[in-house]
Amino acid sequence: MTGWEDVRAEVLRRIRARDWAPGALIPGEEALAVEFGVARATVNRALRDLAEAGLLERRRKAGTRVALLPVRRATLEIPVIRQEVEARGQRHSFRLLAMADAVPPVPVASQLGWGPGLAKLYLETLHLANGKPYAHETRWLEPAVLPDPPPDFSGVSANEWLVTHVAYATGDIAFSAEAADARCAEVLGVAPGAALFVTERTTFSAQGAITFVRLVHAPGYRLHTLV
Amino acid sequence: MTGWEDVRAEVLRRIRARDWAPGALIPGEEALAVEFGVARATVNRALRDLAEAGLLERRRKAGTRVALLPVRRATLEIPVIRQEVEARGQRHSFRLLAMADAVPPVPVASQLGWGPGLAKLYLETLHLANGKPYAHETRWLEPAVLPDPPPDFSGVSANEWLVTHVAYATGDIAFSAEAADARCAEVLGVAPGAALFVTERTTFSAQGAITFVRLVHAPGYRLHTLV
Repeated sequence: MTGWEDVRAEVLRRIRARDWAPGALIPGEEALAVEFGVARATVNRALRDLAEAGLLERRRKAGTRVALLPVRRATLEIPVIRQEVEARGQRHSFRLLAMADAVPPVPVASQLGWGPGLAKLYLETLHLANGKPYAHETRWLEPAVLPDPPPDFSGVSANEWLVTHVAYATGDIAFSAEAADARCAEVLGVAPGAALFVTERTTFSAQGAITFVRLVHAPGYRLHTLV
Repeated sequence: MTGWEDVRAEVLRRIRARDWAPGALIPGEEALAVEFGVARATVNRALRDLAEAGLLERRRKAGTRVALLPVRRATLEIPVIRQEVEARGQRHSFRLLAMADAVPPVPVASQLGWGPGLAKLYLETLHLANGKPYAHETRWLEPAVLPDPPPDFSGVSANEWLVTHVAYATGDIAFSAEAADARCAEVLGVAPGAALFVTERTTFSAQGAITFVRLVHAPGYRLHTLV
């Protein structure tokens, strides 16, 4: 064996063949390094990869076990919307529908840690793919992250400007299905109540909340990945 | 600096401070190892982590660049449904609604590489959380993966049996929003046309397709993760 991928393949083979049964403690990194004739770091890299894939459970001091119920993990890419549209071989464009200073609804403000009653920047954008509605974006943005004068969000989408200009540290993302409300239905050109795929994201920098964005996708949207 | 996390933090700081601008080539691993006084493997681990997070782009031979448009990635856990329900603090149960040998629809058969007209095992299951409908599962299963006699799928869900008994190599997963059809509406107790979150998975072993499963979740389902 030479690389960590070889070690990974052999460990995976033993798990699948049940040489190492579900729940069983496997040999330590040093023992495996000796057995395979590789550096301990190489064994570590292989085991970490299998742990990230949910096939092993690693506990500091308690050693590494074969997962009883492997939790598979899927990795989703979250590209800029323009890239996502272009990856489908389509042309991206967008229209800024609204931009205003306004007080966000309480659930949004509290999720972002914004004090009550503080005005933030509200942006409503329609993204198009080959000129057809692709996603309806509503966004609340911390104005303190913007330069003076602020960017022209009718020329560059807030989505793309933020990704390229504002570093963010943490955030979360949620996916759900929702019935189109009147505004979404109008903007996306669908019947009210249509089943639509919704993505909601919050992003924070070390200094505090940057933005909350809600994307309602036109019918037929699928998020797809390998596991 | 001692660990790879320290190297990662410093590289991240330089990217954020634009000491290393978007698109710029960063120093090689050996140069960074000398500068930081760590092993090259430590630098490699840090850069790989940042590349996996979409902040760096690594090309064999061409070196490592700061990503122009960082693609953020989110990791989703795909647990067994029982675990997912129990993680919400609820009790999982299920009812096997149907089990039959049948010929799958052409789109399913072709996605799984099953020859036309071949009968497979069809299973329809309702998952409940605290006795209330949680997800409607329809599944096509390769009977060759089952032992003789086959497991009692009214006692253990096919979902859980497969995860614990059948090793799989690859698969894919897709998420979408769909309007409830008549059968889903009846089983989940919702109005026909209700907006529902749908998960579809295919799994393959080295020997061929194992299963196609479609999960239609009761209203209010959200898939949530950190990015």
